[in-house]
Amino acid sequence: MTLTHPQESRSSPPQARPGHELRVEKPLMLDCGVALAPFTIAYQTYGKLNQDRSNAILMCHALTGDQYAAEPHPITGKAGWWTTIIGPGKVLDTDRYFLICVNVLGGCMGSSGPAETDPATGKPWGLSFPVITIADMVRAEKLVIEHLGIETLFCVIGGSMGGMQVLQWAATHPELVFSAVPIAAAARHSAQNIAFHEVGRQAIMADPEWCAGNYLEQGRKPERGLAVARMAAHITYLSEQALHRKFGRSLQNRKAVTYGFDADFQVESYLRHQGIAFVDRFDANSYLYITRAMDYFDLAAEYEGVLANAFRNSPTRFCLISFTSDWLFPTSESRELVQALNAAAANVSFVEIETDKGHDAFLLDEPEFFATLRGFIEGCARHRGLATE
Amino acid sequence: MTLTHPQESRSSPPQARPGHELRVEKPLMLDCGVALAPFTIAYQTYGKLNQDRSNAILMCHALTGDQYAAEPHPITGKAGWWTTIIGPGKVLDTDRYFLICVNVLGGCMGSSGPAETDPATGKPWGLSFPVITIADMVRAEKLVIEHLGIETLFCVIGGSMGGMQVLQWAATHPELVFSAVPIAAAARHSAQNIAFHEVGRQAIMADPEWCAGNYLEQGRKPERGLAVARMAAHITYLSEQALHRKFGRSLQNRKAVTYGFDADFQVESYLRHQGIAFVDRFDANSYLYITRAMDYFDLAAEYEGVLANAFRNSPTRFCLISFTSDWLFPTSESRELVQALNAAAANVSFVEIETDKGHDAFLLDEPEFFATLRGFIEGCARHRGLATE
Repeated sequence: MTLTHPQESRSSPPQARPGHELRVEKPLMLDCGVALAPFTIAYQTYGKLNQDRSNAILMCHALTGDQYAAEPHPITGKAGWWTTIIGPGKVLDTDRYFLICVNVLGGCMGSSGPAETDPATGKPWGLSFPVITIADMVRAEKLVIEHLGIETLFCVIGGSMGGMQVLQWAATHPELVFSAVPIAAAARHSAQNIAFHEVGRQAIMADPEWCAGNYLEQGRKPERGLAVARMAAHITYLSEQALHRKFGRSLQNRKAVTYGFDADFQVESYLRHQGIAFVDRFDANSYLYITRAMDYFDLAAEYEGVLANAFRNSPTRFCLISFTSDWLFPTSESRELVQALNAAAANVSFVEIETDKGHDAFLLDEPEFFATLRGFIEGCARHRGLATE
Repeated sequence: MTLTHPQESRSSPPQARPGHELRVEKPLMLDCGVALAPFTIAYQTYGKLNQDRSNAILMCHALTGDQYAAEPHPITGKAGWWTTIIGPGKVLDTDRYFLICVNVLGGCMGSSGPAETDPATGKPWGLSFPVITIADMVRAEKLVIEHLGIETLFCVIGGSMGGMQVLQWAATHPELVFSAVPIAAAARHSAQNIAFHEVGRQAIMADPEWCAGNYLEQGRKPERGLAVARMAAHITYLSEQALHRKFGRSLQNRKAVTYGFDADFQVESYLRHQGIAFVDRFDANSYLYITRAMDYFDLAAEYEGVLANAFRNSPTRFCLISFTSDWLFPTSESRELVQALNAAAANVSFVEIETDKGHDAFLLDEPEFFATLRGFIEGCARHRGLATE
């Protein structure tokens, strides 16, 4: 079996496959009380569903990710965000598993969100789109899983906000989740993380081009505000050590500082580039909505404040992974989850990966991380009767 | 002897004393190559210079600090930023020492900077003000010290950017500095810190009210951009633990989240307040200039890359202080300085204070910090012949 993505093997410029879209007419009751209908959920798949429909893996994307996990991005043309681990023979082996990646509700790559058209008005939703939560994202993902005729997911996996979705899936639908891999995640968003998100939102809202959220209708775009939001967030995705190793105090194409406000230092130039590149592919209001969903995430709160209650009698096999230099979702947050899972007598393994790459390590080439994932998934496959030999 | 600030003992609303201003006609050669003249340096003093002129302490302020260290701020009316340690009988005892605090060159509380009028044009300097460095700040401070007839400073002390100035003083003028106390400081600005500063600068420059730096001339003010810059920076001044302890996920005057973009969480409301309050008292261009001066700071670079060479044969007594939860200027940066000072056979003590208050701990009520400072200064006073008994 090969990837269903013929473009990948060609040397011609990358081109996105036509994506899948699920149009839902039946209202979806959201946490905020709004019954959303009709709406669209966009997703991509890799590999093939087996006859037993027992080999499906749901990959949940992070804040600024999307469904293009293992193929060129339709806007940027860049490789998918998880090509490192998806493919034939790779950790998420497309020869053995059927991989699904859903653009989250509130996103901006085809799923209904503030940048899409409100069918009731024919105009962009903007801020009239209902505020969504991680649980709402999971509700939308479940509709896709049902649509594909999948009764049980072999695995739900994701990093950062993806990990929050994994936890929500495991808590709400333990019987549907054979194994769960929350990576660099937490059971709730911390005060510091809410604070960084709020800076990003204020940067967007401070941009006059934001137009109180109606920029699309007015043919404008808060590019500078969104770029600043991205720059601030991007620092939190890296570790101090990684920034020091990559850039230190190196100057950008110059031998001495210029005594001015140009990007004298490489780290400034790099950050500016991160900001500018981001606005091409991301919607500013989506950024508000998705950061808000993360801020609101507090799994224990749904279970009378007792996190262990989220996992009572869970049949799911958990593997938690954290990274030593991740200060956005530090190991201590994963440990809290492990304690709760142990208190609930759940089946859990936990690995802290030694790396200086920070939070973004889950997107990077990190051999120990890959080996851990491979071992866990292989073990689960054996228990699930999916082993190759 | 009492504080020379009669308002402090009254219950009436605080009012600033008239400040001191030193007008300099002789050109000051800056690192960028510009000869600045004429210019003004604003400063405040507390206590009295003794007959030997041997009891002067120079306090160097941080990025957003100013010369109002121990008296109500003339704009906000709030208590000075170091009232915790300045006063009769306090650590920096105004009954015994003559304290001087100089608004840094490039600042916005009276010293020449981008918000002041360029005498050559009669218009605000804006971005035509020369870019300054930490060494330039020290050059200006030295003029004040000379103006006051002080030959040797008993102590130069400061936190954060203030600590950078202390290090520069000790390196450039070892014979003038009897003792030096760099607190929560570093010998150079790290890549991560440059990155955070760049986010702040981009937030300011993204504000259309910034007008390419000419907002004062146009009667405008980039308040929203400056507020976002302050919000981002403020997170770095606190520790994750402090944010968790102070705010956690507590909601702001509401029982449930509102599913919107108001400040649902206390930490959001707090940050917004920090941003809004800051713009009343600080100039956006000054923020650009002073952050740039910090970014450019790299003491070893002035000494062929060997930090120890900055302190060879130094007669100065050093006391370095860091805080366990400070992630902006972590203890490792102070340790590097201690190693260099030891390599130069300098007289150095070093204390890491256990606290969860983060970088801002040097401005807060921190008994172990106070005790450390008191002990060091008392010891130096004895060696200097300034002891009371």
